[in-house]
Amino acid sequence: MVTLDKIYHAAYVLKQVARKTDMIYAANLSHGDTGIYLKTENLQLTGSFKLRGVYYKISQLTEEQRKAGIIACSAGNHAQGVALAATRMGIRSIVCMPDGAPISKVEATRALGAEICLVKGAYDDAYQYACQLQRESGMTFIHPFDDDEVIAGQGTIGLEILDQLSDVDQVLCPIGGGGLISGVAFAIKTLNPSVKVIGVQAMNAPSMVDSLQAGAPVTLETVKTFADGIAVKHPGDTTYAMVNEYVDQVVTVSEDEIAAAILALIEKQKVIAEGAGAVSVAAAMFEKIPMQGKKTVCIVSGGNIDVTILSRVITRGLITAGRNTTLQIALEDKPGQLLGVSRIVSECVANVVSVNYEHSDTSMAVTSCLLSVGMETRDFDQILEIQRRLEAEGFRIVN
Amino acid sequence: MVTLDKIYHAAYVLKQVARKTDMIYAANLSHGDTGIYLKTENLQLTGSFKLRGVYYKISQLTEEQRKAGIIACSAGNHAQGVALAATRMGIRSIVCMPDGAPISKVEATRALGAEICLVKGAYDDAYQYACQLQRESGMTFIHPFDDDEVIAGQGTIGLEILDQLSDVDQVLCPIGGGGLISGVAFAIKTLNPSVKVIGVQAMNAPSMVDSLQAGAPVTLETVKTFADGIAVKHPGDTTYAMVNEYVDQVVTVSEDEIAAAILALIEKQKVIAEGAGAVSVAAAMFEKIPMQGKKTVCIVSGGNIDVTILSRVITRGLITAGRNTTLQIALEDKPGQLLGVSRIVSECVANVVSVNYEHSDTSMAVTSCLLSVGMETRDFDQILEIQRRLEAEGFRIVN
Repeated sequence: MVTLDKIYHAAYVLKQVARKTDMIYAANLSHGDTGIYLKTENLQLTGSFKLRGVYYKISQLTEEQRKAGIIACSAGNHAQGVALAATRMGIRSIVCMPDGAPISKVEATRALGAEICLVKGAYDDAYQYACQLQRESGMTFIHPFDDDEVIAGQGTIGLEILDQLSDVDQVLCPIGGGGLISGVAFAIKTLNPSVKVIGVQAMNAPSMVDSLQAGAPVTLETVKTFADGIAVKHPGDTTYAMVNEYVDQVVTVSEDEIAAAILALIEKQKVIAEGAGAVSVAAAMFEKIPMQGKKTVCIVSGGNIDVTILSRVITRGLITAGRNTTLQIALEDKPGQLLGVSRIVSECVANVVSVNYEHSDTSMAVTSCLLSVGMETRDFDQILEIQRRLEAEGFRIVN
Repeated sequence: MVTLDKIYHAAYVLKQVARKTDMIYAANLSHGDTGIYLKTENLQLTGSFKLRGVYYKISQLTEEQRKAGIIACSAGNHAQGVALAATRMGIRSIVCMPDGAPISKVEATRALGAEICLVKGAYDDAYQYACQLQRESGMTFIHPFDDDEVIAGQGTIGLEILDQLSDVDQVLCPIGGGGLISGVAFAIKTLNPSVKVIGVQAMNAPSMVDSLQAGAPVTLETVKTFADGIAVKHPGDTTYAMVNEYVDQVVTVSEDEIAAAILALIEKQKVIAEGAGAVSVAAAMFEKIPMQGKKTVCIVSGGNIDVTILSRVITRGLITAGRNTTLQIALEDKPGQLLGVSRIVSECVANVVSVNYEHSDTSMAVTSCLLSVGMETRDFDQILEIQRRLEAEGFRIVN
């Protein structure tokens, strides 16, 4: 059972290893009497909150269990938490991962001291193998969320929130398996029931939302979100029960909203969040709950986003904000046409980043061809101005 | 004159507005007994340390001066610092900017309450106009760095460093005009002369390095670095003298080193630095000074990087790390060639992001054509493997 005693004890034990991450007033996301604060667990060691629960869990193993070592299954933040925690305590750790796991995560986990066991197939296959290995080896399996000690470790974030912002009104917290929010909600509701705790899931991975509606944990067929840290098909039994009892509400956010939140955190607050870490901020930005007149803490649970994905998120964000565009322009097949377009774009002070001039596009009339110009722009007004100028000089814009 | 008294007084005054920014142990940049710590002024309000000096300066104006208001000239972090500081104290502020300033910076400064005066031309023109306006209006001109109170305000960062990491061995600090390092070095050397303070400039904007060599402040003809926050042609007289007296050494870093540091801060520490803010980390990563066995604090002075530039830095970083590549492949002009390439790339598990198939490249033989394939890759080994496989099956790689 999770108790306040256990959470306070975890807080004491975690002093050895975890950072008391900063609570940052998000000046550029707040406005008027809408105050948004970030609990920056993305700046935690290993780049996510996972270290807390795992470290506390391992610290409570018996001497015999420690000697035997631990096993975990994860291709993500749990893996790195397990590796660092075990290494710090001088315990052997094996982490099973599906063989398609990003090499960067594999290497990061190995670098923290875990033995990596790549299993052919998907997460479920790796999980099956880890269970088998556990039975054969007598090592302890560390569940990523459905475990009292793990939940108590994550709950220390709840204590810190109350300490760092004593007049907090509500807390937005990501939900994957439910370990983080179970601990946070238990700590906060036990100490100050008037603070609201609201869970946030990706619209495309609403396992807890569906479970609450069904009145029991359900299993999703598929989860398809780039917030891989909360792409969980089935909540835990303990976490389901705790969310049911202690959480006020669970809301969902779309993939585009998550991407917008990641970009806003970069531009306005100078921090990197992964998809799962940004859902709380997305819920605040897109007002999934009443925000006005309240102090809202968003738990930014992690920052381990693949740079390639980050790059795509930024690009999509720039396009969404009118700061990057590609115009397809139909040109007459005669000299001087490219010059005309170049002049207009230049006069409108847009910065050309790509040009593609297709002479023989069969979708076009024989006497015309297609010019594709990629540009960095200031905003949608500038794009409209360029389109207007082009059309005024007789060019036809195709897209 | 800058005194320790003034810096302590500034620290007291700044409690009203500035964040005591976190000192973060950079676990993923440190190794062995090389300890790297980040003083995260990029997480300061307005996204840079500039708020400190400006706020303290304005707080020390007379009642009469406050009534008359203030003028500044900046297209960058100083502008936002001035705007926020003045607005908080209920003072009118005018910020002159060259008319080519990024719209995002103009809007951010305006949003903080300053009146913006766009001046045709470059920074120097805006500066001339600001001086003229100052003479005509009787408002107070706030210099971005060559000012005792401004320097004292930045010096509060030195106090915080000694407080947050009492056994620090050395501090790496960006230098543009020299205001930040003057305050930091004075505070640290006065309190603990055994701590080394090392300045860092961009190789392409070495005004302080050149001045120290010349024995007096010199003016650079041009500065050409994407670290715009430290692209300063001429150090201040006061800051030159203070750097000369209190700073142990000044080193330089290249544009590629700065870009690599920005990417490392994103991937490994989950924070955004602008070019100027990352030079200290670049100096640490590329060991411009002895790092082993020492605790080194890197002042990450700001995070206001344009997202478009950030996107380019990430892309360049990915290419440099072998995680993104474009191969130019010469194909025979016969059926099945594209299929062959696609199969090999797919078997090597690279992710194709762009394809350009140019049938009539005149640089090629009449019977061949050029295929350009952009891919996300894992590392250089994977790229070599793809190249090897392609060549083994008779394809010629052009680049």
